[in-house]
Amino acid sequence: MSKDSLEKTFTKNQVKTVGTYLLDLLKENGVDHIFGIPGDYILRFDKRIEEHSIEFINATRENTAGYMADAYARMRGLGAACVTYGVGINIVNAIAQCYVESSPVIFISGAPGLDEKKFHLHHLIHKSTFEGRDLTQYQLFKQITIDQAILNDPRTASQQIKRVLSACLYHKKPVYLELPRSIIDQPILESNLLEAYSPPKVSREALAEAILETKALLSKAKRPVIWAGHEISRHNLQAYLLKMAETLNIPIFSSLLGKGSIDERHPLFSGVYQGHLSSDGVREDFDNADLVLVLGVLPTDIDTGLFTANIKKSGSPLIAQENSLAIGHHNYPGLDLSSFVKALAHEDFPKTYPNGSKKSFIQSQAFQPKNARLTIDRVLQALGNKLKDEHILIVDIGDAFFASKDLIVSEKGYLASAYFATMGFAVPGAIGSQIAEKEKRAVVLVGDGAFQMTGTELSTALRYDLDPIVIVLNNHGYGTERPILEGGYNDILNWNYSKLTEVLGGGVGIKTTTELEFKEAIDKAFEKRGTLFLIEADLPKNDTSSALKKLGSLAKK
Amino acid sequence: MSKDSLEKTFTKNQVKTVGTYLLDLLKENGVDHIFGIPGDYILRFDKRIEEHSIEFINATRENTAGYMADAYARMRGLGAACVTYGVGINIVNAIAQCYVESSPVIFISGAPGLDEKKFHLHHLIHKSTFEGRDLTQYQLFKQITIDQAILNDPRTASQQIKRVLSACLYHKKPVYLELPRSIIDQPILESNLLEAYSPPKVSREALAEAILETKALLSKAKRPVIWAGHEISRHNLQAYLLKMAETLNIPIFSSLLGKGSIDERHPLFSGVYQGHLSSDGVREDFDNADLVLVLGVLPTDIDTGLFTANIKKSGSPLIAQENSLAIGHHNYPGLDLSSFVKALAHEDFPKTYPNGSKKSFIQSQAFQPKNARLTIDRVLQALGNKLKDEHILIVDIGDAFFASKDLIVSEKGYLASAYFATMGFAVPGAIGSQIAEKEKRAVVLVGDGAFQMTGTELSTALRYDLDPIVIVLNNHGYGTERPILEGGYNDILNWNYSKLTEVLGGGVGIKTTTELEFKEAIDKAFEKRGTLFLIEADLPKNDTSSALKKLGSLAKK
Repeated sequence: MSKDSLEKTFTKNQVKTVGTYLLDLLKENGVDHIFGIPGDYILRFDKRIEEHSIEFINATRENTAGYMADAYARMRGLGAACVTYGVGINIVNAIAQCYVESSPVIFISGAPGLDEKKFHLHHLIHKSTFEGRDLTQYQLFKQITIDQAILNDPRTASQQIKRVLSACLYHKKPVYLELPRSIIDQPILESNLLEAYSPPKVSREALAEAILETKALLSKAKRPVIWAGHEISRHNLQAYLLKMAETLNIPIFSSLLGKGSIDERHPLFSGVYQGHLSSDGVREDFDNADLVLVLGVLPTDIDTGLFTANIKKSGSPLIAQENSLAIGHHNYPGLDLSSFVKALAHEDFPKTYPNGSKKSFIQSQAFQPKNARLTIDRVLQALGNKLKDEHILIVDIGDAFFASKDLIVSEKGYLASAYFATMGFAVPGAIGSQIAEKEKRAVVLVGDGAFQMTGTELSTALRYDLDPIVIVLNNHGYGTERPILEGGYNDILNWNYSKLTEVLGGGVGIKTTTELEFKEAIDKAFEKRGTLFLIEADLPKNDTSSALKKLGSLAKK
Repeated sequence: MSKDSLEKTFTKNQVKTVGTYLLDLLKENGVDHIFGIPGDYILRFDKRIEEHSIEFINATRENTAGYMADAYARMRGLGAACVTYGVGINIVNAIAQCYVESSPVIFISGAPGLDEKKFHLHHLIHKSTFEGRDLTQYQLFKQITIDQAILNDPRTASQQIKRVLSACLYHKKPVYLELPRSIIDQPILESNLLEAYSPPKVSREALAEAILETKALLSKAKRPVIWAGHEISRHNLQAYLLKMAETLNIPIFSSLLGKGSIDERHPLFSGVYQGHLSSDGVREDFDNADLVLVLGVLPTDIDTGLFTANIKKSGSPLIAQENSLAIGHHNYPGLDLSSFVKALAHEDFPKTYPNGSKKSFIQSQAFQPKNARLTIDRVLQALGNKLKDEHILIVDIGDAFFASKDLIVSEKGYLASAYFATMGFAVPGAIGSQIAEKEKRAVVLVGDGAFQMTGTELSTALRYDLDPIVIVLNNHGYGTERPILEGGYNDILNWNYSKLTEVLGGGVGIKTTTELEFKEAIDKAFEKRGTLFLIEADLPKNDTSSALKKLGSLAKK
């Protein structure tokens, strides 16, 4: 959604109710679905959604509603969730995840009416402090959202809504909107009591200076590369990034959190770089560079391969992030990733480079199953040539995550909680992503531990006729933790995972223990659309992927 | 746990590690189990638990671990849960519930080591603000705990631990303890750097004055009654309350949140009073009184029957709460429920009263099943004479909650989230309560909506060989919300609930649709211990209990 069309929306001046105003604005900004759980303080708003062209998507609980909205926002550029007051804080982890991984979600909480403030009502946490209202949720979500508002006045409601939505869209971070139930059906009274939100201005002179310096670095470099992170797709900069890379003809590596920002079949894409945790060929290619343009990467322990990423080459490091740009040892205050990448995309460069990438990451190969016990490495190989443009690969935390980084995905074809590392994101995330992109199909890799947390959310997939393929990597416990510190706490009860389809009353459940069985199951699942598949890949208890083994030995150092 | 034995514990001065010190102190205060999910920042502490006489109980996710600890605390007087940093905030709703319903739970969060503060680590929310540490969780849980500490120094750790534990035990509210992983195995360095926690002092003179005034009120009254709330059992005042009531021979009504504070088979127990939502006979009995001693009741919308409770009789109302005492229009600052009730129990009274209670609440009657479609009222009648001393009735929010208030339970024989109104508390609560009291058996009433939220936690019941009887009241949607504002959002997918036992690999699942089938199922389930039963009571979509109908018509007014 461009700033222009947002502006157009804001200047409309029809008389609407607060609820309808909010819904119309969301709709105009690309929100066709709101995820939630009904509850008495939000019920009236749920009703307004039902009457609106936006569709209400019922999750089975609050935190999974949040994960769905998160995935939806990563696909669409904006997501929304609404729940009731108090117990609605069950959504908190999802909002924190949106915050640290930059996913623009508007979280709408119901609340008691403005006329109810003197009562000791259920779901409330603290009694009356400010105008008799409970401010606990507001304080709590202030820690993990970029802007917040309690809509307690129809004269300021429209401005508050515009402000938090603008902040959400500009920063790509979640915002908190508290909606007392008495205000939902009140008419919006337009006024200018509050200051509007104005994003920071970018200095043209500073930008020109930074571009000049970047070009000087490039002209000196022999083998420059790009390391692109998740902020590229969050700020919708994929096309600009590609244009620049194509002009220069230089390889693009992605971070793990940024995986899927661009189509990995693009000739310049050269693998997921993760320091010493990269696949061998990828690391070699990356280390061969003499200049790295670090664009939109968050230098987390995971994305830097436990801080082993090698970005200080012979040239000065160049690091552009959401709200900062540093070259060598100096910063450009006020410059941001978006302006910088867009400006670079419009530049001519005096010199281009031979693309030095050996493209040595795992290629899709035909999988030849043996009649042998299944292992995680073989599961990944089997999936290798199944993933097409229509698929979104969604991996949960654990070996599913570490093992899958070299599978080739399309643009926006990969989702993971790759920094906050939430267990249980993948299944609800799959639902959110398929609702965002109806023609796509989610392929989920999830460990047994994570599946026990949120696997029953497949209920919602069935309810809305979605057909994800969910593969439970059953390594019998918290497999990622066993190498760190083993104990009985890493064991979990062994469920008959594939039988969950019988509880939910739909989909096909298949248990597999050999390569042949697994191959047969995924052949069936990928063959045609329309049916949800739940496939258990039963693995040996101590089976770990080569990627996880590498992590284990690096962590020991 | 008495203040004396707590004091004794505190004066011990052995050299221990921080982790062992904390575990020993918990053990000495009655904690034999800690509920949690392992995760890298807490793993080392999990290992110390494994080596300790305290048992680690693996939940399947964080919020259910919190609900288990909450139920355990309600039964035992202290509970504990531990999870990892960041994603561990999934526990937040459980801790908020403990806060508003006064359940003393010590919530222990893992955290990065003190030596790791400069890193951009996974699970963290904000970068370095205070000494390079992320303070988000601390700020967040400050909203919903009574005391908090980050153990960042072995010289202050023991005092911090003592302080938060004392606050937890005194206020019966949850506390937050953040445990950087590097400190767990460091030796405790005893010192007196911090001030100890000292509970407020009670003035003897003020207490004597209040007692005198109470006796004067009683001497004028003809038909006094007691309305006792949950704070009675939280502060372990049941015996004092009964002694006083027996001396005076006056009826005891309980609030809904306080249900199960005393054995409801006691001759003076006269029913659950909930204003206009009380059962007819109970309301009549209560309204017949001319003085009400309100002891430990929180005047919430639910407990007061939407603020219809009639406590201002001809005499002055007397309201004692956790930290306050009001008689008529004046307060006694500094007086608390505990001192007041204990003092009253030691008094002689010049006058006693004929117990005027008609004991008109529902009595256990033999249930005569018909070959007819099951309804919720009939489910409740069928359960009426099944509940014995060994049972703990745990009801989830919804009609399960409203319909069950007149079932007769024993002391600490009833648990519900009767104020915060969390959906999904009952199943994990059942597990926590049975782990707290091994010889007891939990009987769960849970709606279909709530069961979809946390029902899979029965996995943990099977893992630890617990045998709860879980009855899913399947009224096909959010039945409590339909009368408020009907819409498609109140529908949920209809699961084959009883088949969940096949997924989990244990227990007996039975689906029932008629009275005869239901009677047969519960006969089987109650007959003998040792097997988990999951019984679906399939109800008509718009079936509601008489209690819920009453609520609906009262809410409309």
